[in-house]
Amino acid sequence: MNRMKVTEKIIASKISQGLKWSDVATKVGLSKEWVTAACLGQMTLADDQADIVGELFDLSTEERTWLTVVPYKGATSDTPADPLIYRFYELIGVYGPTLKELIHEEFGDGIMSAIDFKMEMAREPNPNGDRVQITMSGKFLPYQSY
Amino acid sequence: MNRMKVTEKIIASKISQGLKWSDVATKVGLSKEWVTAACLGQMTLADDQADIVGELFDLSTEERTWLTVVPYKGATSDTPADPLIYRFYELIGVYGPTLKELIHEEFGDGIMSAIDFKMEMAREPNPNGDRVQITMSGKFLPYQSY
Amino acid sequence: MNRMKVTEKIIASKISQGLKWSDVATKVGLSKEWVTAACLGQMTLADDQADIVGELFDLSTEERTWLTVVPYKGATSDTPADPLIYRFYELIGVYGPTLKELIHEEFGDGIMSAIDFKMEMAREPNPNGDRVQITMSGKFLPYQSY
Amino acid sequence: MNRMKVTEKIIASKISQGLKWSDVATKVGLSKEWVTAACLGQMTLADDQADIVGELFDLSTEERTWLTVVPYKGATSDTPADPLIYRFYELIGVYGPTLKELIHEEFGDGIMSAIDFKMEMAREPNPNGDRVQITMSGKFLPYQSY
Amino acid sequence: MNRMKVTEKIIASKISQGLKWSDVATKVGLSKEWVTAACLGQMTLADDQADIVGELFDLSTEERTWLTVVPYKGATSDTPADPLIYRFYELIGVYGPTLKELIHEEFGDGIMSAIDFKMEMAREPNPNGDRVQITMSGKFLPYQSY
Amino acid sequence: MNRMKVTEKIIASKISQGLKWSDVATKVGLSKEWVTAACLGQMTLADDQADIVGELFDLSTEERTWLTVVPYKGATSDTPADPLIYRFYELIGVYGPTLKELIHEEFGDGIMSAIDFKMEMAREPNPNGDRVQITMSGKFLPYQSY
Amino acid sequence: MNRMKVTEKIIASKISQGLKWSDVATKVGLSKEWVTAACLGQMTLADDQADIVGELFDLSTEERTWLTVVPYKGATSDTPADPLIYRFYELIGVYGPTLKELIHEEFGDGIMSAIDFKMEMAREPNPNGDRVQITMSGKFLPYQSY
Amino acid sequence: MNRMKVTEKIIASKISQGLKWSDVATKVGLSKEWVTAACLGQMTLADDQADIVGELFDLSTEERTWLTVVPYKGATSDTPADPLIYRFYELIGVYGPTLKELIHEEFGDGIMSAIDFKMEMAREPNPNGDRVQITMSGKFLPYQSY
Amino acid sequence: MNRMKVTEKIIASKISQGLKWSDVATKVGLSKEWVTAACLGQMTLADDQADIVGELFDLSTEERTWLTVVPYKGATSDTPADPLIYRFYELIGVYGPTLKELIHEEFGDGIMSAIDFKMEMAREPNPNGDRVQITMSGKFLPYQSY
Amino acid sequence: MNRMKVTEKIIASKISQGLKWSDVATKVGLSKEWVTAACLGQMTLADDQADIVGELFDLSTEERTWLTVVPYKGATSDTPADPLIYRFYELIGVYGPTLKELIHEEFGDGIMSAIDFKMEMAREPNPNGDRVQITMSGKFLPYQSY
Repeated sequence: MNRMKVTEKIIASKISQGLKWSDVATKVGLSKEWVTAACLGQMTLADDQADIVGELFDLSTEERTWLTVVPYKGATSDTPADPLIYRFYELIGVYGPTLKELIHEEFGDGIMSAIDFKMEMAREPNPNGDRVQITMSGKFLPYQSY
Repeated sequence: MNRMKVTEKIIASKISQGLKWSDVATKVGLSKEWVTAACLGQMTLADDQADIVGELFDLSTEERTWLTVVPYKGATSDTPADPLIYRFYELIGVYGPTLKELIHEEFGDGIMSAIDFKMEMAREPNPNGDRVQITMSGKFLPYQSY
Repeated sequence: MNRMKVTEKIIASKISQGLKWSDVATKVGLSKEWVTAACLGQMTLADDQADIVGELFDLSTEERTWLTVVPYKGATSDTPADPLIYRFYELIGVYGPTLKELIHEEFGDGIMSAIDFKMEMAREPNPNGDRVQITMSGKFLPYQSY
Repeated sequence: MNRMKVTEKIIASKISQGLKWSDVATKVGLSKEWVTAACLGQMTLADDQADIVGELFDLSTEERTWLTVVPYKGATSDTPADPLIYRFYELIGVYGPTLKELIHEEFGDGIMSAIDFKMEMAREPNPNGDRVQITMSGKFLPYQSY
Repeated sequence: MNRMKVTEKIIASKISQGLKWSDVATKVGLSKEWVTAACLGQMTLADDQADIVGELFDLSTEERTWLTVVPYKGATSDTPADPLIYRFYELIGVYGPTLKELIHEEFGDGIMSAIDFKMEMAREPNPNGDRVQITMSGKFLPYQSY
Repeated sequence: MNRMKVTEKIIASKISQGLKWSDVATKVGLSKEWVTAACLGQMTLADDQADIVGELFDLSTEERTWLTVVPYKGATSDTPADPLIYRFYELIGVYGPTLKELIHEEFGDGIMSAIDFKMEMAREPNPNGDRVQITMSGKFLPYQSY
Repeated sequence: MNRMKVTEKIIASKISQGLKWSDVATKVGLSKEWVTAACLGQMTLADDQADIVGELFDLSTEERTWLTVVPYKGATSDTPADPLIYRFYELIGVYGPTLKELIHEEFGDGIMSAIDFKMEMAREPNPNGDRVQITMSGKFLPYQSY
Repeated sequence: MNRMKVTEKIIASKISQGLKWSDVATKVGLSKEWVTAACLGQMTLADDQADIVGELFDLSTEERTWLTVVPYKGATSDTPADPLIYRFYELIGVYGPTLKELIHEEFGDGIMSAIDFKMEMAREPNPNGDRVQITMSGKFLPYQSY
Repeated sequence: MNRMKVTEKIIASKISQGLKWSDVATKVGLSKEWVTAACLGQMTLADDQADIVGELFDLSTEERTWLTVVPYKGATSDTPADPLIYRFYELIGVYGPTLKELIHEEFGDGIMSAIDFKMEMAREPNPNGDRVQITMSGKFLPYQSY
Repeated sequence: MNRMKVTEKIIASKISQGLKWSDVATKVGLSKEWVTAACLGQMTLADDQADIVGELFDLSTEERTWLTVVPYKGATSDTPADPLIYRFYELIGVYGPTLKELIHEEFGDGIMSAIDFKMEMAREPNPNGDRVQITMSGKFLPYQSY
């Protein structure tokens, strides 16, 4: 038993039940972005959250415990092959130096936190074809001399 | 002469003159995000835009012509070393599968375009420390059977 | 259960039954290119398409459901080892910059979409030895300033 | 002096003169695809072709001689960063196994030659946005037992 | 069931029976080089060849069918670790540019086909220690302008 | 000054003079394969050989001395991009395990030496198109217990 | 002119003058760790700090300006070759999962900040041979649900 | 049975029992850092230590024996994906050359041993948010001429 | 069944029986270096050697046969993670060019054979701490012109 | 000016003067192994050693100073291409696990130091062809619990 196996079981259960991530999130009472990431093995759930998720996906007590253990996070492949995920990787190549310049210009030396961070994905209606809107918000963390 | 050398000249000129990207953008009359990316060698400028940028950074006629040529785009390193840029790469590892799930749940099979795309970076005031807010908007492109 | 296992089952079933992809495509009523890609785990099938394919390859209800879930797409190896597939990779090395120059010369800055895209493979009879003809058609997507 | 330097000189000369590849091809009397690939350092020119190209781009005798020497071909980066070129690489990931299946189904074991090969890029008018059409034709080469 | 499993079964059966590849080749009536490559999962067998091989290695009907399906070919590791195989890789590093120069000098621009190709390995008696002789023959394929 | 610069000078001189490697080899009095490899920076020349080569390519005394120094050998790229050289690499993938099996079957455990080695490339006339014939001969070196 | 060139000039000047980093740090009035990192191109200096450093290493006005620009940080090689630096990399391999377990056990899910971070290197006298003592202190940043 | 399986069993047992590493360390009578590393498969336990650990995690005699065998150590991935572990890797990129300079300035040519080494992780209370403190101590090993 | 499984079985049997490699070597009647390498799957055993080893580790007839088959040799990871093995890899980086210079100075162009090779590891008593002594002996193989 | 340039100058000077490393070592009064490594940029020289070396190779005062600065050590390529150096790398693949087993069997958990280390290369006369003998001696460093 490990977290990856719990993730696989959640995904298989979601597909066979025809559940939606947004419904899972509503049940947990948090954003669909955080809850999906947690179910996919990237976030740590509190005990009561693990119970709600465990109920929905029919997980055993041991599997629910694994949801409350801090997981190994992140993907291992340097260049993602999937076209949807690759587009975000491409954007780092095209816009990475631009973000570096503009954030430093606005805030000075430091970074946008990827830990004290939240994200939202929404549909943006548009007569020329609806658009995907992604809003990220991360605390600015300044480098300081010492 | 090539585009990379023009980019290096623009950066050196910007630093010695103490210019700001947001001022360059105001002069060009477009967003700071697009203009910075263009000055960093990722976008193609129209002739009049190249003249404004060329005036600001004291570029020769030949250098201005290079700004109007479609550049080779994107960074070549798999894993970026710079901490600020790496955080975006880390977010793909942590949230990539989540974005894939949620976009497909909302739109079906397809991707967020990285071409018909725009982005905005803004300061988000916060009593616990200001935050970096990044908003992306890309057209959804559906896969279709044929 | 996951999509990769369904793909493996389809391939094994196709070989033991001696089926042809073109016949599968005729049954589905779409091109052999799209249907083969879908059976190989690269495209998402509609429910009725999944039923036709499921019937042909003797898939269970759960396996048919997996055919309707958006798959992780793309191959993971940087340089493909198989000689037939490698030739396409080699062509990108030899002709990639040429395609970049000619598409930009004809259309300006932008790309050929790999999503709003279709492809056809056909035999081209030739007295010196028949030829493989591949026709690709992808919507041109322009970069635009903002 | 080497071929790469001749290529760089051709590109710089083309940009400063505002030439088009299709006009160069007309002067040489061959397709724009082959002539562009040759000017970009991927094909070997005959003496008279090298003279025409040398005239257009103002090359010295030694530089023209280099155009007639068989070059080292192909790009060195495993995964191309440029978005336009990457799309072709992505298509190999998504459609590579499909092409393998369909070519073997039609022709048996063997490959599409990347040497006895030609390619054409054309604009395909379309009310929903013009499309890029690429037609490839390569001789089928069968594996044979011995 | 897949081709790799059939290959593993053939190898295990060969070792436990103490068979020799040259005897297998004699039974099939073709060269030891082609037959060994085919048994190792690199070539496609005709039905009658698959029957002979299947008989020798005690393969089931389904396993024999897999021998007649075009396999995915080639090894995946960039730099082979095995000392015997590495020596051939080293020879490409040491002699690759030499072969390129000499083949172009003799034949012009083009390649030696790795498809229309045959190979023979033989013992070359020598008083200072016998030598391995490898003879390769591949059709020259010229690049042509179009 | 280093060996790579001498190699570059030899190549440039060969092209501007229109020399052929086979003529250089005749002057040196050795095979075209060894002489070309030596001129390309892979082999060490004796003093008199370095003088003959130096005369032909108009090398200085210091450059001739570099020809007599043992060079760093081999290419550094894992997967060669050039189509002609790649075909040899592909053959290792397709036939590497076959060569391993057949050499061990004939000689026992050991390798074909890549040092006590010679190679010859010749044109093999053929009505269906001439062929490239490559003959390699390397001493068998057995592993021995101790 | 770029930051890397300023770094190279500082290092060369330090060696020819026989300066010590700890003396530079004393002059700047900050820790030797931060000041050395800044001189090596990893931190951003304030104007007055850049003047002190510029005075010591005899930098021009333009070079001092570069010291105040946020640099691209971090090394690019995956596995460092230098034995001293490699030992730290090895420690991540040996102790990385241990640090992950112990930090999560003490603090819950989150990370040690590498931005709000300071470090000190000191000699630890020891009769069996003096020891290198490194003390790191980074703010704990918790992941939070949203 | 191998060491990795013992590690997996220890981790699963720890999670299902809700044990803490610091308690395990107290039972063994050594630091939490060394004991955790040992339980995670990086250190070799003495027989009595293996018995204590085996008791806690309910290991068989054979599994306890594996704890006393020197393990293969270190992680295999060049760039760690997990955000917590990556921060240490990032610190090597940012501070690696600084550590090299300062250690050589203090001790001369040599390294900090990663074998004769110990480490401690502690909570550092801080009104702005508690901090992770890591103290490393490794013997300085000088290079010496011979 | 394959050689790697036999190796795993030998290692597990050795650990559960508490055998030592040097005792195994004494039983086989050869050096501990060669016998250990053979048991770890890197060398080919004669029939009688395989019987002795098979007896000691309780191997079946089929497993003993696998010991007499030439194995695929060598490790696959570019940079070894294990600290003990890495030190040898580091020595190649630090001393590789030195060995190249000194061997060529003594012997001329050629290599030290890794096939006609033997090695011995011994304890070297030393009041400052015992040392590991490794003695390698490989036949010098000269490159020769032809 | 940096260490690499001093190394290049030493090598060029050695070749044009026809010096031998063993003579350089005699002048310095240390082993040929350490002195060659130092001249190739891997070791740090004392002031008087730098003067002797500087005299021999006609180095400036600044260049001699660089010889006394601790260099960045080690090679950067994962798999060395040069046949002589590769053989040592191959030996790690073939004998690495054997060395690990035998050193642990003799000494327990720990490593052979690559810092407190010396090496000697000598000719070993042999009627079947002289052999290269390499003797390494490194202090054993034990891991210890804490």
